[in-house]
Amino acid sequence: MTMNILGYATHSPTDNLAPYHFERREPRADDVVIEILYCGVCHSDLHQAHNDWHNSNYPLVPGHEIVGRVTEVGAAVTRFKVGDLAAVGCMVDSCQHCEPCEHGEEQYCVEFPTLTYNSVNRHDQMPTYGGYSEKIVVTEKFTLKVPENLELAGTAPLLCAGITTWSPLRHWKVGKGSRVAVVGLGGLGHMALKLAKALGAEVTLFTRSEGKEADARRLGADNIVLSSDETQMAAVQGHFDFILDTVPYIHDLNQYIPTLAISGTLVLVGYLGPLEPMLNTAPMVLGRKSIAGSLIGGIAETQELLDFCAEHNITSDVEVIKIQEINTAYQRMLKSDVKYRFVIDMKSLKA
Amino acid sequence: MTMNILGYATHSPTDNLAPYHFERREPRADDVVIEILYCGVCHSDLHQAHNDWHNSNYPLVPGHEIVGRVTEVGAAVTRFKVGDLAAVGCMVDSCQHCEPCEHGEEQYCVEFPTLTYNSVNRHDQMPTYGGYSEKIVVTEKFTLKVPENLELAGTAPLLCAGITTWSPLRHWKVGKGSRVAVVGLGGLGHMALKLAKALGAEVTLFTRSEGKEADARRLGADNIVLSSDETQMAAVQGHFDFILDTVPYIHDLNQYIPTLAISGTLVLVGYLGPLEPMLNTAPMVLGRKSIAGSLIGGIAETQELLDFCAEHNITSDVEVIKIQEINTAYQRMLKSDVKYRFVIDMKSLKA
Ligand SMILES: [Zn+2]
Ligand SMILES: [Zn+2]
Ligand SMILES: [Zn+2]
Ligand SMILES: [Zn+2]
Repeated sequence: MTMNILGYATHSPTDNLAPYHFERREPRADDVVIEILYCGVCHSDLHQAHNDWHNSNYPLVPGHEIVGRVTEVGAAVTRFKVGDLAAVGCMVDSCQHCEPCEHGEEQYCVEFPTLTYNSVNRHDQMPTYGGYSEKIVVTEKFTLKVPENLELAGTAPLLCAGITTWSPLRHWKVGKGSRVAVVGLGGLGHMALKLAKALGAEVTLFTRSEGKEADARRLGADNIVLSSDETQMAAVQGHFDFILDTVPYIHDLNQYIPTLAISGTLVLVGYLGPLEPMLNTAPMVLGRKSIAGSLIGGIAETQELLDFCAEHNITSDVEVIKIQEINTAYQRMLKSDVKYRFVIDMKSLKA
Repeated sequence: MTMNILGYATHSPTDNLAPYHFERREPRADDVVIEILYCGVCHSDLHQAHNDWHNSNYPLVPGHEIVGRVTEVGAAVTRFKVGDLAAVGCMVDSCQHCEPCEHGEEQYCVEFPTLTYNSVNRHDQMPTYGGYSEKIVVTEKFTLKVPENLELAGTAPLLCAGITTWSPLRHWKVGKGSRVAVVGLGGLGHMALKLAKALGAEVTLFTRSEGKEADARRLGADNIVLSSDETQMAAVQGHFDFILDTVPYIHDLNQYIPTLAISGTLVLVGYLGPLEPMLNTAPMVLGRKSIAGSLIGGIAETQELLDFCAEHNITSDVEVIKIQEINTAYQRMLKSDVKYRFVIDMKSLKA
């Protein structure tokens, strides 16, 4: 029997989010049912609610930074029992047999992963609904263990903002002795500072606005470079092994490439679209420098992140809100007025 | 006592190359004197002769694909003796103490390497003159050993066209099982086909013009893809681990990025300048794909290439010319009328 679930949905690009009842599938043998305690509010939620990517299906229940407690498990589930903490990120399924899937890189599944919301379940063709809701039903394979010592509200953003920065840091082997720069100090950027620092790197924040120094240092930055200041930029020419660029809108990469060391890499995690002004390849050829992109992270890698964060006592800096405040929160996000992530306390749904 | 040397020089961007006498330094203790037998004709020679990069110093003696025989060695030279074959590429010196130099990547020397011509010797401030000449004097450190079994005229282009393609193939670990594509079939492209094939890769040529198939297959291509043919392009979406782009002029990369596999890399070796049309980052983020550049190669790596070519019996396909034909050769190069490299038989200088 399907479960009737209360969540918050929007019915069009211009509607506000409001209470909405919908059905989730009857748990299958490999499913875990999770009562959602906290759900982070990602910029994707806002873009998807507003149909900014022209692919939104309504009604839409956003939310893919989900932390909760297991209330039920299918007969074949082995890693979870009722009462365990559990988490769900951006994906709830994938083909499980392509090359990326076999390498634990389900985010790059050649058949595309099933997303946590605004997607279609690949077994029963039911629409997927996200974490702005009471409960979620997810195959055990895509359910993460949450170490008991983590502060739960701050753990939710690890499932998207955290893994999106963790995966490239790991793929490009950032560690002790690495010289890392982070571009942008938002939900992704503040996690990148914390994680790169905990990995042992020397960490620099590139920022366009003054007044972020104290916060950046508290979050793990050893240095702050104002990208509009020529003297400060000149001082870091050829310096960084790795730059993680979290800026979500079109911007000029040509000022950052020369700050890469020989064979260094700049990785975009925030911006998908054309690069303007035109990218100049000369410093890339003359210094064997790379520009790359990276998308969230795989399931095993997400578990690795949660375990790393438990060991290093890292969570996201969050502002906890009630679900009734979600529309105001979206408005504040459009003005970058959040340090650094809104997280919904899902108890409020029952209020 | 300095040596008076006969070469071919140009005195301005619009002059033809013509006989010219100039001085080379008195050999130092670590120097090797090489009688030049063959010198390859690189596109850089033409660009530099015409001052296309606005940095040419005249009189200019081009040539950085040099093969010859040792006629004299300094007292401290240990690896060469009179009568040995020897070769010189694009660089004749570097700082020798920066991080890239210490890692054998002299091409990325942070103080910039001393180039074989149009540069200034870092010890005595004499201008450097290239291989369109009787003899060259080079420190042993930047002199390569030439295996005796290599055909000498076809060996000359290994020193620039060869190493420029070899270095990225090695840096990005192309080998057995790699799926490699080469964009462009000229001096660089034809070497890339041969080397990638000999490294054990599956090799594809991307080309814009029909009629190159037989030649490409003979040079090592397993497949040829006409980049203007949508069906052929669709068949290779997500296919290549590595694309080596040898095209020397501005061109659209957006058609090639989707043919990269997850985590694949496209490396530019021919084009320095702005990328137009604008590069779209979406397929890079969605597939963790990279765009990079690469510049010639280090000295140890060049020796590795020469040894690899001797082992696999690889040389460049060349058209041997007399030095008196150099101006005509430049005109033909501007029309891409060469398969695949002109090489000057330097005996002709004495004719
Ligand atoms: Zn997200
Ligand atoms: Zn898959
Ligand atoms: Zn060259
Ligand atoms: Zn150096």
